[in-house]
Amino acid sequence: MQEKLTESRRSFLTTSGKTMAGIAIASSVLGANAQKAAAYSYNTGFKYTKLDPAKVGAITYENYFKRWCASSVIAGFVEQLRDKVGGQWKDFPIDAMRWAHGGMAGWGALCGTLTGAGTVIGLCTNDTDIGEAMANDLAFYYSYTEMPNFQPQKILKTEIHDMSIAGTPVCHISVGRWMKTANESFLTDGRAERCARVAADIAMETTRMLNAWKDGTFKAKHKPLYNVVANGITSQHNCKDCHGNDIPSPETYQTLEK
Amino acid sequence: MQEKLTESRRSFLTTSGKTMAGIAIASSVLGANAQKAAAYSYNTGFKYTKLDPAKVGAITYENYFKRWCASSVIAGFVEQLRDKVGGQWKDFPIDAMRWAHGGMAGWGALCGTLTGAGTVIGLCTNDTDIGEAMANDLAFYYSYTEMPNFQPQKILKTEIHDMSIAGTPVCHISVGRWMKTANESFLTDGRAERCARVAADIAMETTRMLNAWKDGTFKAKHKPLYNVVANGITSQHNCKDCHGNDIPSPETYQTLEK
Repeated sequence: MQEKLTESRRSFLTTSGKTMAGIAIASSVLGANAQKAAAYSYNTGFKYTKLDPAKVGAITYENYFKRWCASSVIAGFVEQLRDKVGGQWKDFPIDAMRWAHGGMAGWGALCGTLTGAGTVIGLCTNDTDIGEAMANDLAFYYSYTEMPNFQPQKILKTEIHDMSIAGTPVCHISVGRWMKTANESFLTDGRAERCARVAADIAMETTRMLNAWKDGTFKAKHKPLYNVVANGITSQHNCKDCHGNDIPSPETYQTLEK
Repeated sequence: MQEKLTESRRSFLTTSGKTMAGIAIASSVLGANAQKAAAYSYNTGFKYTKLDPAKVGAITYENYFKRWCASSVIAGFVEQLRDKVGGQWKDFPIDAMRWAHGGMAGWGALCGTLTGAGTVIGLCTNDTDIGEAMANDLAFYYSYTEMPNFQPQKILKTEIHDMSIAGTPVCHISVGRWMKTANESFLTDGRAERCARVAADIAMETTRMLNAWKDGTFKAKHKPLYNVVANGITSQHNCKDCHGNDIPSPETYQTLEK
């Protein structure tokens, strides 16, 4: 079956370049209107108070080796918010998102640090436009920041020095690029240490965004990716990263910076 | 930068096949032990009562056109559980996970229906082994079931007839394969209808799993993917799907059925 699917996908990519270019023009207009109209505010009892990014990062890092990527980011916030804010945070099960590790139970899709961070963002904020903007900015940050950058005060697994640029929020590719850079295999202390530090980096950036939002100064850094549906489908604009040279390199990426 | 990253990835794949085969043998043993030891139970105030899968599916479908994939699945459960169970469900913000649509704000990574379903699973259940098993089974179901299969009583966008097999929990590929099968572009009523029905399918399967768990009869159908780290990294075993013929086709997939 895999072979059949692969063939189908290849055929799509090689034969529909022209169609996709047409879609790109239409969707960059339609997409913006269609999605913008759908935003709305909502109520949440999970209140936010400004936190120290360094402390959120440190707690996240410490939690990683038990809770893995998604729930360790949640722990970085909830372990403080349940004391400082209380209310609904008191009983929120930090481990509810642990399944999201490794891009969903090891399937390698969305990096769990982003699922964890997005959960906190969505619970704290109260407007779909805000959650959307923060998730989008965070995906950009994750994809194009050299990581891990976090330095633990006490190293829990092993010292590491290598950093890499993921180029994507996809776990499999992100981890693979670091493994290549560091010449490490997956089931090593070094790789675990890398993911723990990346979790801290993402938790810290999320804290900076939420603190700005609490101050009323949060402003999206990037245009929503879905408003530039340049490939006629939900995606980044790094098509060649997976698709090789089958389709033309899109020229829309440089327009994404506001 | 994209070009550089691509080269780096290709080089890794073509030069390290031998290394990865070695890792595969080691990690299928190490992985099982390492991950198994890390499971634990946790407390949650989000209690579950058995629900009718068809009703969960119907509510999910109806919510999709406002809330999109992730939060529509959550709505399928929460709109019932807050009345039937109450407690913490009463104030849970259904829209907190809306950012996860389109594989994270349109970035095309993990299908949002799975993020939504995983959130409900993690909140309801109380052991990381259960959440892990359900997330893994659900990723298999999503990847290898012909969808959409759900038939709405009242069609909200447009009739559609085509079904496809995603082969992956990745939004971009899953949606793309359906678009190819149905000859539809992304910003169409047909594609929206497809994603709404897939959301209902995933919500219904999640209900079946949670009902079985409530009855004490839930049993994982598939081995955890992470216990067969055949590529030395978090991933499926459909490498050729993205990587072409650069590395040997893995032969581990058939061992994943229990």
